[in-house]
Amino acid sequence: MSTQRTPVTVIGLGQMGAALAGAFLDAGHPTTVFNRSPEKAGPLVARGARHAATVAEAAAAGELVVVCVLDYPAVRALLQPVAAELRGRVLVNLTSGSPEQARAEAEWAAGHGIGYLDGGIMTTPPGVGDSANMILYAGDAGLLAAHRPTLAVLGDPVDLGADAGLASLYDAGLLGLMWSVFGGWLHATALTGADGVPAKEFTALAVRWLRTVSWFMTTYAEQIDAGEYPGDDATIDVQVASIGHLLHAGEARGVDGRLPQLHLALMEQAVAAGHGGDSYARIIEAFRE
Amino acid sequence: MSTQRTPVTVIGLGQMGAALAGAFLDAGHPTTVFNRSPEKAGPLVARGARHAATVAEAAAAGELVVVCVLDYPAVRALLQPVAAELRGRVLVNLTSGSPEQARAEAEWAAGHGIGYLDGGIMTTPPGVGDSANMILYAGDAGLLAAHRPTLAVLGDPVDLGADAGLASLYDAGLLGLMWSVFGGWLHATALTGADGVPAKEFTALAVRWLRTVSWFMTTYAEQIDAGEYPGDDATIDVQVASIGHLLHAGEARGVDGRLPQLHLALMEQAVAAGHGGDSYARIIEAFRE
Ligand SMILES: NC(=O)c1ccc[n+]([C@@H]2O[C@H](COP(=O)([O-])OP(=O)(O)OC[C@H]3O[C@@H](n4cnc5c(N)ncnc54)[C@H](OP(=O)(O)O)[C@@H]3O)[C@@H](O)[C@H]2O)c1
Ligand SMILES: NC(=O)c1ccc[n+]([C@@H]2O[C@H](COP(=O)([O-])OP(=O)(O)OC[C@H]3O[C@@H](n4cnc5c(N)ncnc54)[C@H](OP(=O)(O)O)[C@@H]3O)[C@@H](O)[C@H]2O)c1
Repeated sequence: MSTQRTPVTVIGLGQMGAALAGAFLDAGHPTTVFNRSPEKAGPLVARGARHAATVAEAAAAGELVVVCVLDYPAVRALLQPVAAELRGRVLVNLTSGSPEQARAEAEWAAGHGIGYLDGGIMTTPPGVGDSANMILYAGDAGLLAAHRPTLAVLGDPVDLGADAGLASLYDAGLLGLMWSVFGGWLHATALTGADGVPAKEFTALAVRWLRTVSWFMTTYAEQIDAGEYPGDDATIDVQVASIGHLLHAGEARGVDGRLPQLHLALMEQAVAAGHGGDSYARIIEAFRE
Repeated sequence: MSTQRTPVTVIGLGQMGAALAGAFLDAGHPTTVFNRSPEKAGPLVARGARHAATVAEAAAAGELVVVCVLDYPAVRALLQPVAAELRGRVLVNLTSGSPEQARAEAEWAAGHGIGYLDGGIMTTPPGVGDSANMILYAGDAGLLAAHRPTLAVLGDPVDLGADAGLASLYDAGLLGLMWSVFGGWLHATALTGADGVPAKEFTALAVRWLRTVSWFMTTYAEQIDAGEYPGDDATIDVQVASIGHLLHAGEARGVDGRLPQLHLALMEQAVAAGHGGDSYARIIEAFRE
């Protein structure tokens, strides 16, 4: 007894594309691969992939055609000439870009009778294939539902709906959150490291703390949607007092203060606007300009 | 059959001190309370607390004396006159301050024969009493182990060892991480909100994403301790390309860009130093000045 897995194509075999193709192969999907520099197909062919000599051949081979290259201009350059081969198939674009680029790509696909899903891979190549990690999808209604079992091979598919720009918008926002987490964590690791704390020890607690911070965020998200910011747990005024300890501890240890100084500036802006007694969620207004 | 719970004292009944006393009462500890403004004791007395009329009386009542007031000068002002009453007891200082203040307080306590633990409460008052949340302790060796069952009533006790300054240092670092998380999350919530995404929807994914980011941090912490930053999953160069999408998406939506601009500046500093091919963990050097 054998189940027939959907034939897939992966175009682009950089670090990420190779991981995607590898996950499909591991799951038993007939997998056709293509890369501008053909030598990158070698290791995947050794694992059972079929190597297409041209993009046209690659496009015609898969029911689902996944593309993951450097950027959207590269996607267009590759696929414009093979629009006819893609007609009636589903194009899954996992290349990073802006929401505006994604919307334009969705329009291009629709104009050629190509099903289109725009995606954002929320992990690095070693995390591909792990259902703990999210892959965001937006685009033609129903397509994700129809192809969920196949796409689930890459990571947990998250459906953001029909606006094809939303996967890129969420992706950009979530990466921004990641850089902020990294910044705060590296600052704190430098600070505690100055007193001899190994990064590994501090990070174990930092990771645990992120679960508590997540709980604050969940509470504050409701405040943001309601447009009301009651400071009944901790106020911005209290945080202004606390951040002084961080700034002083950093100065005493020669740790760069640009990041906490920016947070203080955001807090002071809220205090100056008369919102010192509100919760931290009020600071979203500083970002809305 | 009744178990005898350790008698405790709580000095300072602000938002946080009241939550601490409440948790002790809920757990059945004989609890004596004191506050500069005595009227704040009322609701706790109604729940079974004993109200001390003076700090001296409060200090003499508990085996464990918890103090949680505005800052360290307030702690010293309250406790200096009752050092004799505190002798032989264990003072648990959960007031926020700098590592330097905590070390001075530990010295003062040692000079008066008072056991001393310095703590950092890693939650807000509504989170007190939940063992999912951490309370950090540093100070006299063995004291935390001896009083763990009592202190566990307030939250999960985390032992940072004998340097009394470390609870404050970790506390400052973890709060810095929190403000960075909040900043990145509020920026992203403003960004996605501009395209109509409710904060609650974006936040659900942001909270999930923090688990993936935690996994990156755990990997990078080992790199920091090893002093080597191989960029084999994702390089700083790749992040510089990605942050462009965030900056552009933010500009197109009128979202304040100070935070991503600072992250870009940190990345560009690493690239300029020739480290663009390294992992993001390399950016700790930008903080070490
Ligand atoms: N790495 C990650 O952690 C990660 C995470 C999430 C999303 N992504 C996104 O995934 C995409 C690929 O990233 P990657 O890490 O795989 O990058 P990479 O290792 O640098 O690979 C880039 C790929 O794009 C191809 N390419 C570039 N310009 C091209 C062009 N003009 N025409 C045809 N092909 C072109 C390359 O082909 P050649 O081999 O011929 O150069 C290669 O296959 C990017 O959009 C990235 O933002 C990456
Ligand atoms: N709230 C939080 O989320 C949170 C989280 C972690 C840590 N903390 C820390 O916990 C501590 C207390 O915070 P809180 O939220 O409870 O603040 P709060 O509600 O403003 O209460 C302040 C407390 O300090 C007392 N106090 C202030 N100055 C004093 C002085 N000179 N002499 C005697 N007592 C004085 C106040 O007494 P009166 O009632 O007489 O004014 C009150 O009991 C702070 O160090 C804070 O950083 C708070």
